Amino acid sequence: MAKAVLVVCDGLGDRPFAGGRTPLQASSKPNIDELAANGINGQMDVISPGIVPGSDTAHLALLGYDPYQCYPGRGTFEALGAEMDFREGDVAFRANFATVSEDGSIIDRRAGRIGSDSLAEALNVEIDGVEIRVKHTVDHRCAVVFRGENLSHLVSDVDPHEEGMKPRKCRPLRNDEPAVRTANIVNKFVELSFKILDSHEENRERAEKGIPKANILLLRGAGTYKSVEPFEQHFGFRACFIAGASLYKGVAKFLGIQTIDVKGATGRADTNLKNKAKAAVDALKKYDLVFLHVKATDNFGHDGDFHGKASMIERIDSELIPSLTETDAIITITADHSTPVSIRRHSADPVPLLINGEGVRKDDVKAYDEISVASGGLCRLRGLDLMPTISDLMGFYRMFGT
Amino acid sequence: MAKAVLVVCDGLGDRPFAGGRTPLQASSKPNIDELAANGINGQMDVISPGIVPGSDTAHLALLGYDPYQCYPGRGTFEALGAEMDFREGDVAFRANFATVSEDGSIIDRRAGRIGSDSLAEALNVEIDGVEIRVKHTVDHRCAVVFRGENLSHLVSDVDPHEEGMKPRKCRPLRNDEPAVRTANIVNKFVELSFKILDSHEENRERAEKGIPKANILLLRGAGTYKSVEPFEQHFGFRACFIAGASLYKGVAKFLGIQTIDVKGATGRADTNLKNKAKAAVDALKKYDLVFLHVKATDNFGHDGDFHGKASMIERIDSELIPSLTETDAIITITADHSTPVSIRRHSADPVPLLINGEGVRKDDVKAYDEISVASGGLCRLRGLDLMPTISDLMGFYRMFGT
Repeated sequence: MAKAVLVVCDGLGDRPFAGGRTPLQASSKPNIDELAANGINGQMDVISPGIVPGSDTAHLALLGYDPYQCYPGRGTFEALGAEMDFREGDVAFRANFATVSEDGSIIDRRAGRIGSDSLAEALNVEIDGVEIRVKHTVDHRCAVVFRGENLSHLVSDVDPHEEGMKPRKCRPLRNDEPAVRTANIVNKFVELSFKILDSHEENRERAEKGIPKANILLLRGAGTYKSVEPFEQHFGFRACFIAGASLYKGVAKFLGIQTIDVKGATGRADTNLKNKAKAAVDALKKYDLVFLHVKATDNFGHDGDFHGKASMIERIDSELIPSLTETDAIITITADHSTPVSIRRHSADPVPLLINGEGVRKDDVKAYDEISVASGGLCRLRGLDLMPTISDLMGFYRMFGT
Repeated sequence: MAKAVLVVCDGLGDRPFAGGRTPLQASSKPNIDELAANGINGQMDVISPGIVPGSDTAHLALLGYDPYQCYPGRGTFEALGAEMDFREGDVAFRANFATVSEDGSIIDRRAGRIGSDSLAEALNVEIDGVEIRVKHTVDHRCAVVFRGENLSHLVSDVDPHEEGMKPRKCRPLRNDEPAVRTANIVNKFVELSFKILDSHEENRERAEKGIPKANILLLRGAGTYKSVEPFEQHFGFRACFIAGASLYKGVAKFLGIQTIDVKGATGRADTNLKNKAKAAVDALKKYDLVFLHVKATDNFGHDGDFHGKASMIERIDSELIPSLTETDAIITITADHSTPVSIRRHSADPVPLLINGEGVRKDDVKAYDEISVASGGLCRLRGLDLMPTISDLMGFYRMFGT
């Protein structure tokens, strides 16, 4: 059986910028282009054409799990990624500390990007018989778990995603008692969070230092408990995850996949790609497939930073890829979605895909970019088809019929 | 309305061998290449990308029947192909004579590839009220039908597919009474088959001549009775099958398609392709679509015989295709799955596909092989889409809406 590395560069796909080239076309990436030239290439609709993938649903699809069947909501991945106790009947949220003025308008949605463990701990309360636990993750972010009877994840977001606005009232998304009850508790909790946080000693200190107060917690992305067949059972081989950001750790945990922590893997542009590459090469001794995630390409897309994105691609090419090509592993390079710098958001444009390794049908593609791969031998796949395709090349195939 | 011939070369798709060419790329096949150059080409995932098709499910898909909906299990096709009486409530198996030692270990899974009608007849017994009928088909192979109350096809295989092992115990695949009962009867029958066969006069004679005894019958591929809408009713035109091996005759019967027996069509490399071509041309007078199956390409793939496969392709090109191109029929050439010589098994690699005939949108493809067709106008289809595509070109189209 062959080993494999699946490199997912978050938000890698792009559109021609200012009528010209995409960041992939504009960057110098000889190693990746060589893999493309000696491999098979194509485009991939991670969900389906025209549907913009979220990072969470995209990763489920790339790992061979139909998000329409098994997506539990984003909060679930946050809670799992934060290693919180999360069980059947619980509801989980992603949350962020924010700064609100005295009239309740949001001044800074991210409270200066600074949160703290002790502020999160101060929010562990009980409301209407529901135990609420808050865990601080990175920067201003938290995961929240509600535990109690008769809860539902079918409730709307509190975070209005816009400054100057007041937090939104949480609404039930279905007219049933659990959703109505959960929405009420969310609203009570958000109000209570202001009372607890605004007068918290730490916030008084922040105010003195001129740091925005983290004086409210905004909840969104309610998720429910779901269990799926673990990856190893489903595909018949062992996989591991190398990823900095907690969402991806949560997705891995949801699928029963081990995450390997790598020193210097930050999920940001300063991430240590050489360490990630080394960790991947090491992990291949123990695992059949290494899923290696690089986040920063997406961040540059959201920031509209064309040159930043192109430079990050060049760093991936020179710092990450060379160690991988020294192995015998089948190498796949793709993205979870496009994040064009021109529109600064996820888009439904298909992502570029290359597979290089023993047994692939080499095509005529010479460079790895959105336009060049479109004439490749893989044509246009869906995200859900990727893992079976890689499995078959690895030799862990499944036959339907005889 | 136009007529059509669908040529399915079993296991035709391949991977580059030793880093070089595929058998299709390495073979000289001017007639097929001319059809490609004047036709439309593409790739096809007979089931879906990454899923390895069995021969049985693949043929259902190619004929426009969704195997996920209507696959009855392999045994059903074997029983139908052997022209056994097979009804609602029956369970059918494929079976093979094998040679076991006195301690029950399998010495030869195929009993020297020699079976016999009389040995099969000796196994027509009744166990626990279930009537068991065995019919010898070709070589060491048989079809078996169980008839009685309360039977289930949800039972595991007895054949361990490996020599040196003992036959496996048949297990129920679902914890219900019919499956448990059927598994028990299978186990009793396999034991009984040894008692009956080992002491059979014919086996004493085989032993004297140094031929491996056919002293046990190994069952696998349990199938149930299912009925589907016959092909003619479903598509609105008449089709016939030209195929040597009994599985394909069974699939044809399952779909209500007539099989035409051709002298010298053996399902092996020595098959008479010229006779098959003549039969196809004749059949076009009476039928709208002729499904013409060539088995040997798959056998060479399983044997890892690159040159054998390439030579077989050359024979198909020179002995089969010319008669077909003299007709006005729309010609489609494809495969049911890939059987790369490098891995000697079915793989999920898409199969090459060409369609040539009046009305097709000619593309720029010049040669018929896995790599060349990938840039063709058909892009990448699924098996289930093939028959509607051909039907539309023939003029037997179906409109959805008005």
